[in-house]
Amino acid sequence: MNACIRDHATIDGAAPRSVQRRDAHGVHNLRDDIACEVPVALHYNDSPFAVLMATPCDLADLALGFSLSEALIADAGELRIDAVDESVDGICIRMRIPDARHPALANRQRNLPGYGGCGVCGSADIDAVLRAPPCVTVVTRIDGASLHRALAALHERQPLNAATGATHAAGFADRDGQLLLVREDVGRHNALDKLIGAMASAGIVAGNGFAIVTSRASYELAVKAAQVGIPMLAAISAPTTLAIALAESANLCLIGFARNGHCAVYAHPQRLVPAR
Amino acid sequence: MNACIRDHATIDGAAPRSVQRRDAHGVHNLRDDIACEVPVALHYNDSPFAVLMATPCDLADLALGFSLSEALIADAGELRIDAVDESVDGICIRMRIPDARHPALANRQRNLPGYGGCGVCGSADIDAVLRAPPCVTVVTRIDGASLHRALAALHERQPLNAATGATHAAGFADRDGQLLLVREDVGRHNALDKLIGAMASAGIVAGNGFAIVTSRASYELAVKAAQVGIPMLAAISAPTTLAIALAESANLCLIGFARNGHCAVYAHPQRLVPAR
Repeated sequence: MNACIRDHATIDGAAPRSVQRRDAHGVHNLRDDIACEVPVALHYNDSPFAVLMATPCDLADLALGFSLSEALIADAGELRIDAVDESVDGICIRMRIPDARHPALANRQRNLPGYGGCGVCGSADIDAVLRAPPCVTVVTRIDGASLHRALAALHERQPLNAATGATHAAGFADRDGQLLLVREDVGRHNALDKLIGAMASAGIVAGNGFAIVTSRASYELAVKAAQVGIPMLAAISAPTTLAIALAESANLCLIGFARNGHCAVYAHPQRLVPAR
Repeated sequence: MNACIRDHATIDGAAPRSVQRRDAHGVHNLRDDIACEVPVALHYNDSPFAVLMATPCDLADLALGFSLSEALIADAGELRIDAVDESVDGICIRMRIPDARHPALANRQRNLPGYGGCGVCGSADIDAVLRAPPCVTVVTRIDGASLHRALAALHERQPLNAATGATHAAGFADRDGQLLLVREDVGRHNALDKLIGAMASAGIVAGNGFAIVTSRASYELAVKAAQVGIPMLAAISAPTTLAIALAESANLCLIGFARNGHCAVYAHPQRLVPAR
């Protein structure tokens, strides 16, 4: 079904499709770049673990970031990607982690939250869906001007969204607000996982800056950020109650509606230094 | 963790939280309405099936709509909601479906796609994540003016989003573009499921109109719409490649970027009559 994988796209992660645009001037038949959405199966040590609906670019970052943010491994050195197999219907990433991590694998397999949680193995239990990441230990204070500097730079660093209008972005900036890395995906949690993987590959220490996302701040984003030690997460749109609760308990500074020089701090506001 | 359930909210599905707003005029300590996000476990015939991260309003609609759009039941009469149990951590909806539907239950349990797909029971297989809904049989043509009439009315029918800025909406309009029902949720697929459930409860025939959503058009939204026989789905933002592929194969008219009198038709454009 998924011709995306084989298409010649003008940009990685997009594919051209026919579209009929309608406006006040009539009907226009065009070709548009569309964001690819592909089932990506993650296998660890020869066993299937999860399927993400993701954009097929930066897949090594996605695999590494997911493994870290879901607490399947403790550092990048524990993951080996054996193969990325493409088929007509999707992509399978085959990975290997140390045998010592098998308990984490089994434990998280019961704890993956959200849509598609599985009743057979127990993840349909509410208690299993909620998890407690380690508390963020780095309590760096970030200047409001740095936050808005990073946000202003993010717009120019989203080529896939510029082409398709369909993708979220996650970026990481240093304490001065210099945007170091950006990743994109149709799924906001995938964009953050790709960012986390890219940071680990580049040796960027999570405690030395902050993350920004173009989406709302849901529970999943907050828990992933806290899990890898990102001390501050700023979202362009609104947070949810559960994201705020997680951020409060995990010592994560959580910011929403971060745009146009404004923002709203929902947890640990002392960590964002008011702009002068 | 989830105090949302017990809070006195100013609007159903939201809860007040402290927030520190920052702008050019300084720091303001306020109380904001925040969209509730709660783990909602769905149990069928005493067995856990899935956990949704959802906004706890219109839960009966969510339960019925999910059961229909995931092809667990064929019509509303097949579902009985026995209990909606609230706990500190979330909500459990206990439902009963006919024994004859057990095969559907077992089959779909292996086919729930997306984040959190489970490896133990097999849903981590790519083939199992993709599904083929029945083809939409009603091929009603909708006038462009009707589409934009419904879209214009949607904005005023999103009280939860007006209060929180965090929720998606899904609405159903008749052929003339009169907006009959709207439902909201932090998750776009939950908003559509709530709409589908509300339509079934009200006896609204899916073939007699079209659905509009305030989000992007992902695979999940397209497959759910097609499953219940909605002939046209219009999204305010962009579609993905997989949503277009599903729409083409399921005879669903798929529209994106539907706003400000414009739109782009990605599948079965003959079903949207050009506005004069």
